[in-house]
Amino acid sequence: MSSSTGPRRPTMEDVAEVAGVSRGTVSRVLNGGHYVSPDALTAVQRAIRKTGYVVNQHARSLVTQRSDSIAFILSDPQDRLFEDPNFAILLKGCTQALAERDITLLLTVAGTQEDRKRVGRWVTAGHVDGVLLVSEHAGSPLINELRARGLPIVAAGRPIGHERDISYVAADDRDGARQLVEHLRSRGRRRIAIITGPIDTPGGVDRLAGYQDVLGEPDPRLVANGDYTQDSGARAMEELLQRAPDLDAVFVCSDLMALGAVAVLQRAGKRIPEDVAVGGFDDSKAAVSATPQLTTIRQDFARVSVEMVRLLQDSITSGGRSAVILPTELVVRDST
Amino acid sequence: MSSSTGPRRPTMEDVAEVAGVSRGTVSRVLNGGHYVSPDALTAVQRAIRKTGYVVNQHARSLVTQRSDSIAFILSDPQDRLFEDPNFAILLKGCTQALAERDITLLLTVAGTQEDRKRVGRWVTAGHVDGVLLVSEHAGSPLINELRARGLPIVAAGRPIGHERDISYVAADDRDGARQLVEHLRSRGRRRIAIITGPIDTPGGVDRLAGYQDVLGEPDPRLVANGDYTQDSGARAMEELLQRAPDLDAVFVCSDLMALGAVAVLQRAGKRIPEDVAVGGFDDSKAAVSATPQLTTIRQDFARVSVEMVRLLQDSITSGGRSAVILPTELVVRDST
Repeated sequence: MSSSTGPRRPTMEDVAEVAGVSRGTVSRVLNGGHYVSPDALTAVQRAIRKTGYVVNQHARSLVTQRSDSIAFILSDPQDRLFEDPNFAILLKGCTQALAERDITLLLTVAGTQEDRKRVGRWVTAGHVDGVLLVSEHAGSPLINELRARGLPIVAAGRPIGHERDISYVAADDRDGARQLVEHLRSRGRRRIAIITGPIDTPGGVDRLAGYQDVLGEPDPRLVANGDYTQDSGARAMEELLQRAPDLDAVFVCSDLMALGAVAVLQRAGKRIPEDVAVGGFDDSKAAVSATPQLTTIRQDFARVSVEMVRLLQDSITSGGRSAVILPTELVVRDST
Repeated sequence: MSSSTGPRRPTMEDVAEVAGVSRGTVSRVLNGGHYVSPDALTAVQRAIRKTGYVVNQHARSLVTQRSDSIAFILSDPQDRLFEDPNFAILLKGCTQALAERDITLLLTVAGTQEDRKRVGRWVTAGHVDGVLLVSEHAGSPLINELRARGLPIVAAGRPIGHERDISYVAADDRDGARQLVEHLRSRGRRRIAIITGPIDTPGGVDRLAGYQDVLGEPDPRLVANGDYTQDSGARAMEELLQRAPDLDAVFVCSDLMALGAVAVLQRAGKRIPEDVAVGGFDDSKAAVSATPQLTTIRQDFARVSVEMVRLLQDSITSGGRSAVILPTELVVRDST
């Protein structure tokens, strides 16, 4: 006898019907996305959102002995979480993709070596099923500790020195940098400077490599380093103007740093783009809030987060390891 | 034989020396702050920061069987975390106060009832030693579930309906509202409207109560509700201008909502403060970024977070329960 009058909880069959795929396809998506075409994956993800389907994880965890939770570890000072809009998008995407699987996301900030040790102890004590690692710097001991304890990990961005050990999802930084620098050249620019990210991060290394792919070994006067903050972009731009006052373009490796660089150029009386063309990276809110609006490289962080959750589930259920490189895209606006 | 040449790890004795207190006082601070004067507490906290002292928690957890972690549960949609600067300050303060005790903070966002159920299951499964509860709305099932499992909890703000069950740290919302409204009256204002927060939150209820303490039962045309977002402040201001075009002041129960209200007033051709005086609440960055800068009520979120961590440790070690109400302060700027 069944006479519930409340709204019926959506089933896997409902998702399949809305997505226009078989129940088996839905099941494969929920269990890691093996043998599912990208189109079907997208259709199922949309249908999950539309129907409000939630996996009956509680029943599942009795069988699997899992904690049904994932740690999202940010290896940067907390302030970065609130300053850099990319983190919010990544966090939101991961939270949502995990919630669809009825899994709890726990964010923890590990900005110092002490923090990383403490967090490493905690996550390896069995409190979570896996780790999403964000903004990890090369040489940090955290990856080694997590690997030694056999914990499934997926990194956002290329994990320098661990490319063959752990799964990761990265935007194609190097190709994005190439596209941006080629675009600056196509605008007739010949003295193209670069403000890099930290050189112990993949975005720091790979975007510089893309710049070099196009321009060859750079004039050292045209290279300055930043740390992705707006202030560091301003400081680096001041350095560059002193060392190479004849520069006619600058590729700034994040939109937030580009805001700092633009302010310094404007104070120095340079017109953008007439005197100096400026390119950013990320296509974040900062790019469109800038005056002039920034030419930049779009990274699809929403898709990065969906792929990270998919790879992590894959790694938890089957121990698989893989890397996904997502394409980047040139967005031309008024600053070049 | 000891011949380490690296920097010596700071000890409890070092902290005591820098703070100018006894080792016993430092120990009492680290174990919950019982029988410590506010001055000594401040001195020890400063000394901990200055020396970089870290509790040897790993040794301690072998004895105590604790996880040495705390969940920070935000019962609001994730977007609020990034929109409302108060959360960042609270999160940072709690993270830092816990790091001084070598305890990991895990943030989790529980914006929907489904989220709250899932998070409730996870935190009561023994993964954390206690919970910091932020932005909990009245009637949410989370508090009952946590209490039923005996988990130590400290709420930020008065936990409506649970004032006698769980510890909490709150700014004196009601008195802050009284100060602001009395200030508006002292400026000669007679038609003082209010834009409240959500009426299922303590800031919503208690600030309205403070307004009523000063003005008595309000003219219903002068009361509109918001949800602490900037957009909701704008919508509420539009309503108020329609219903009571003669209003000469408005007390907006958060600075962020006040930004929305100010924009609507300015579009309607009202001069601030000449035609309409505007008061906010929080003394956040929004208050000083507004034009004109906002008169508002200062809440000391840094102190709220220190007190929350202290009460939680207290509750974990001794099962104690207490409430701390922190004073609020009127800050007069150009909008009144």
